Amino acid sequence: MLPTQGSGEFGLIARHFTRTGRPGRALLGVGDDCALLEPARGALAVSTDMLLEGRHFFADVAPESLGHKALAVNLSDLAAMGASPVAFTLALALPELDDAWLAAFARGLFALADEHRCELVGGDTTRGPLNVCITVMGEVDPAQALRRDGARAGDDLWVSGCLGGAAWAVAHRQDSGGWIRPATVASADFDSALQALHRPQPRLVLGLALRGLASAAIDLSDGLAGDLHHVLTRSSEAAGESLAARIDLPRLPLHDVLAGLPHKAQYQLALAGGDDYELLFSAAPQHRPTLTTLGERLGVPLVRIGAIDGAPIADETPRLRLIDAQGQTVGLALQAHDHFLTRIAE
Amino acid sequence: MLPTQGSGEFGLIARHFTRTGRPGRALLGVGDDCALLEPARGALAVSTDMLLEGRHFFADVAPESLGHKALAVNLSDLAAMGASPVAFTLALALPELDDAWLAAFARGLFALADEHRCELVGGDTTRGPLNVCITVMGEVDPAQALRRDGARAGDDLWVSGCLGGAAWAVAHRQDSGGWIRPATVASADFDSALQALHRPQPRLVLGLALRGLASAAIDLSDGLAGDLHHVLTRSSEAAGESLAARIDLPRLPLHDVLAGLPHKAQYQLALAGGDDYELLFSAAPQHRPTLTTLGERLGVPLVRIGAIDGAPIADETPRLRLIDAQGQTVGLALQAHDHFLTRIAE
Repeated sequence: MLPTQGSGEFGLIARHFTRTGRPGRALLGVGDDCALLEPARGALAVSTDMLLEGRHFFADVAPESLGHKALAVNLSDLAAMGASPVAFTLALALPELDDAWLAAFARGLFALADEHRCELVGGDTTRGPLNVCITVMGEVDPAQALRRDGARAGDDLWVSGCLGGAAWAVAHRQDSGGWIRPATVASADFDSALQALHRPQPRLVLGLALRGLASAAIDLSDGLAGDLHHVLTRSSEAAGESLAARIDLPRLPLHDVLAGLPHKAQYQLALAGGDDYELLFSAAPQHRPTLTTLGERLGVPLVRIGAIDGAPIADETPRLRLIDAQGQTVGLALQAHDHFLTRIAE
Repeated sequence: MLPTQGSGEFGLIARHFTRTGRPGRALLGVGDDCALLEPARGALAVSTDMLLEGRHFFADVAPESLGHKALAVNLSDLAAMGASPVAFTLALALPELDDAWLAAFARGLFALADEHRCELVGGDTTRGPLNVCITVMGEVDPAQALRRDGARAGDDLWVSGCLGGAAWAVAHRQDSGGWIRPATVASADFDSALQALHRPQPRLVLGLALRGLASAAIDLSDGLAGDLHHVLTRSSEAAGESLAARIDLPRLPLHDVLAGLPHKAQYQLALAGGDDYELLFSAAPQHRPTLTTLGERLGVPLVRIGAIDGAPIADETPRLRLIDAQGQTVGLALQAHDHFLTRIAE
């Protein structure tokens, strides 16, 4: 656990992460062997994500953005359960101790934590290759939690926000001379794509509002196609029947930065690019008017992009059909997003 | 979060960490955006520790031992709070996917988890320099929790087990030609020291039994002197007076492997070597008979090694006095254990 005070380098770290006199849910915060939290109202929702340099972020990432994003991707998991944030722990491996770097990292981290009233209650620091591991805790009535396994044949498929902006920013960084041509992109769109990559906004308010409406939900971290596959797999198991999904490609809410790209590149980035941190959810068709109103009220675009179908033939692999503007099924060889397969180039 | 199933490399990982049909506290386990746990009975106790190759373990560590130790050091934090284990998350960065390595790691991890009924409820895996980050959750009545801030002048200081064995094993590995001479050590002691390093046993049963007896407690991860310093600092703040501590050096329960060493080396290893994962606690003198009986009943050596004093002069630094067999205060320049200062040699 992080020391509350100390000499030398530990003291330096503690100064950046110790905050006193703030109201919170912790009965005992940073500085003991464990933090003590009031028991959750409802069930305790727990998720953990580890971010590594060179795999989840570039070596020269702005530390304030990294602090924001490391917590954002964890809060996004709470959003996808319809859970309210309570607290988080932070384990941090640092190659060196840089006061300015730590101050900026903490600034980004705590700005988002405060916005969502999520309290840092403990942590660990060590010297090593840059690695940020956050475990987040929230609370949700288990009967209302948005799970991955509740999608059923006939449900609509919805997605929040827009897709592919963050993936475009990564692709641009890796290969600006290839099919990504930033010269053809408006600077506002360029900035917006960078914002999507570096400062994703977890959809917590939306997640809470979707309780009782969505039949299943997941946050988009590895790309819509792969994440939808998880929903289909879990829901097929729970339903006892093989489910498939249909996505109407023209309905996909593409990030504006993708506008000039060939269709195939657009769909690769929007369906398999990863790092969107939007919510993908299923809901019965009767909820269409409510969801449309909800999106307007929250100022969050909610787009109906397809539907869940019963698979015509029971097979082991849940299937995803991509439908073009002419209503034809198109074959797209999407390159899966997998942190074991891809690597962010330096 | 870990996928429950999948193709390729993610599927391989999931196979080693997915367990079905086991009773547990999770309403929803591995495989969704978050795990859902029943709310804690009492307060939720949370701690996180990150273990890195080359800093917390040698590159050639047996994976079964690493699986055990990564969870053990976290459970030790629960023990030091008097908390009962409930669940944990595991984030794992791996340089490569090695089926046999993962199987052995999981074996060591789950053997300890099952022993203490602590359920794996979620995780994250990625490719990168070997890094194991566990967050453990337990439960404890907050009024009974063993905190660091309850020590008071006049309390006895106690420690469980014996000290310095793990630190000896590290020192032996780093510098077998120096003052560590394994040729003079009985092989049973040698094996026992390796066991202390690789397979520490978290003192969970003891921690539970100390509720209502110990006034403060901490687990020994960075060496007794440094960890006692944390207790003195926190307790001084809470008591509103400057506290000091006295340690009677001849009373220190030294690991047998230290027997042939010069006194100074013994004390360096026992007081500042780190990696003991024993409990250091304070208790009012009235509890001496109860604690002696408790140690015998549990089969855990409990040794009274000193006492908490009011500091004669209020100063900012809580003070530690080391007393020799003649009752004289001795000066020992202990080299602090700090993961930012030391590095396990390859």
